[in-house]
Amino acid sequence: MNVIVRGRTQSCRTVAFDRTGNAVLLIEQRLLPHEFKIVATRTYRETAAAIRDMLVRGAPAIAATAAYGLAQGALGFRGCNLRKFSRHLAAVYQTLQAARPTAVDPVNAMDGVRKIMRAGKTVAEQQALALAAAEEFANADVNHCAAIGRHGAKLIRNGMKVLTHCNAGWLACVDIGTATAPLYAAQAQGKKFHVFCDETRPRCQGATLTAWELARQGISHQVIADNAAGHLMQRGEIDLVIVGSDRTLGRTGEVANKIGTYTKAVLAQRHGIPFYVAIPLSTIDWNLKCGFDIPIEERHESEVLGVWGTISIPHSALRTPHSSRRVYVRVANPTSGARNPGFDVTPPELITGIITPAGIFKPRELWSKRHQLGLAG
Amino acid sequence: MNVIVRGRTQSCRTVAFDRTGNAVLLIEQRLLPHEFKIVATRTYRETAAAIRDMLVRGAPAIAATAAYGLAQGALGFRGCNLRKFSRHLAAVYQTLQAARPTAVDPVNAMDGVRKIMRAGKTVAEQQALALAAAEEFANADVNHCAAIGRHGAKLIRNGMKVLTHCNAGWLACVDIGTATAPLYAAQAQGKKFHVFCDETRPRCQGATLTAWELARQGISHQVIADNAAGHLMQRGEIDLVIVGSDRTLGRTGEVANKIGTYTKAVLAQRHGIPFYVAIPLSTIDWNLKCGFDIPIEERHESEVLGVWGTISIPHSALRTPHSSRRVYVRVANPTSGARNPGFDVTPPELITGIITPAGIFKPRELWSKRHQLGLAG
Repeated sequence: MNVIVRGRTQSCRTVAFDRTGNAVLLIEQRLLPHEFKIVATRTYRETAAAIRDMLVRGAPAIAATAAYGLAQGALGFRGCNLRKFSRHLAAVYQTLQAARPTAVDPVNAMDGVRKIMRAGKTVAEQQALALAAAEEFANADVNHCAAIGRHGAKLIRNGMKVLTHCNAGWLACVDIGTATAPLYAAQAQGKKFHVFCDETRPRCQGATLTAWELARQGISHQVIADNAAGHLMQRGEIDLVIVGSDRTLGRTGEVANKIGTYTKAVLAQRHGIPFYVAIPLSTIDWNLKCGFDIPIEERHESEVLGVWGTISIPHSALRTPHSSRRVYVRVANPTSGARNPGFDVTPPELITGIITPAGIFKPRELWSKRHQLGLAG
Repeated sequence: MNVIVRGRTQSCRTVAFDRTGNAVLLIEQRLLPHEFKIVATRTYRETAAAIRDMLVRGAPAIAATAAYGLAQGALGFRGCNLRKFSRHLAAVYQTLQAARPTAVDPVNAMDGVRKIMRAGKTVAEQQALALAAAEEFANADVNHCAAIGRHGAKLIRNGMKVLTHCNAGWLACVDIGTATAPLYAAQAQGKKFHVFCDETRPRCQGATLTAWELARQGISHQVIADNAAGHLMQRGEIDLVIVGSDRTLGRTGEVANKIGTYTKAVLAQRHGIPFYVAIPLSTIDWNLKCGFDIPIEERHESEVLGVWGTISIPHSALRTPHSSRRVYVRVANPTSGARNPGFDVTPPELITGIITPAGIFKPRELWSKRHQLGLAG
């Protein structure tokens, strides 16, 4: 997507590669929305640290980062001994995998790169193939998101008001995003519409990341408290809901996504408002047979009991003016605890359609279309 | 309710009167939940300032504060000239009314006190009657809340998990509260249960005030993000919902309450969970014929774009260590705006019952029971 750097508009992916410097280029997401900065990780170890420390987040984005990290590690090898190169590459792979041990996307991405590399007969050939495969992986992600955008943009008409939840945006992918892709595509077609961004407590990705993305792209939008969507629907102020998905069950059409998604789906159904889920194919789980079996991560209670934000402390009050700009504040009663489920599951009867790179499907259609959607066999 | 002050448990109302010092005693609510402090306003002007500056909040609580303020102003008069006393009292009334010009409860409360005072034939008699009437008004509020508690406690069984929204608690009344009254009454009956407090963004009254109240009374509870209730209901973890009301339409049974209440009612209906609204009779509007006509206040966007909380800045970083303990932090993207409707309207078909001091009624029964519920005629 486009960003303005030193007064100039330039295209910018969440994850990119600098061949000259053998560096992975990442948007430093922990500073957003208050500061925009691109970080260059100059070794595969630095790239692994960026994944581990959540400088980059979102399954497609960390998958591409790991693919580039593997190529970076391969290119960093000096010499032409293939056996030594293989041992080095195994260490690189191991380091990147360990950076986010529960995620499956980085592993799949690196396995794809490794498979392609094997065609090389020399170290130099394998190095070149690794980089080509990583670039190919990143480009494929961009193309998938663009296809989601093409299909989803048909749902958006002039004057519509669209509700989003959390951030399944450009920042979670290599570019464009999933739930945001239809918005960007509709904007490119010249359509005018307004977006309400659910704040998305407790981590506030809607208020911070999605609002930041939409502001950068000049899309009309407002942040709302998660409590406000029901009232706005009741007053006829929401025409369409588009959300992302962390895991979609191919057998049942159930969708696991950020906590609060289910609530919006229930409200949308009551008000007859179309509710769509935009997904990359990699998030479809073809094995699990029941949404109730999806493990729901219980996250730390500090997320609910307080929030991270930016404080304007008068410089005169601080010894070191920059030391406390970004801070965690405790909001809740100090002697109370919290429950903090991170995700919820939305049943297929509440979902109007699933927007995929291959088209829009009814949630219960996924299984019968599984060959079209990339499930081998 | 009980609070512990310097290690001793003592009973404490949100609003009380100190005869010796002619002072109104108020819990300083702006410091909660981080500090508990009782403030004595020593003149009626100080009492008016406390109302204006939201040191005290909640319709029943400010009504009692105004009633005591009027008595305080009357008792502050020196002399026995009835005409001068009347002029003085008019100025007191005017000052207290101007402190919260849109609220009707303080006006009704002061009118009640004035009416009773008129029976006095001397300044001294009128002064004594004013204080007695203010005490009577406060005691009546406590009795109404206690009656709500008696009726509502029947709904709570051992082992239940109860969801609350916002704060219609002890702190919003003279004592006990409305939505919290059934909880306190059930606790007094020895019942064991667990309460989930909706955080209640944007102003977080659930995470701050309700959680503080429940912690003080030793009731098992946890704060949850407003997004989490749907998931907990889906997993069978909520058995009952009790909320308060800012305005209840006597003709239709519609309930206006804090933003997000409607969403919880929709979710409760989907899951077959009883949804109750606890109200003092003073919040019933017998005139309005349609909930859509209730004006929904659009509050300042800064409430949604950030939050007030407590920060732990290392002392070494601050020149004056105390200067920034309680701070506002900006959470949302700095270039985004917000919508901030303060209330929503829940239709009667989503409400299982309305808990009043006179018993529990179906929302559509209110009109036929209007004589029992205090509507003259």
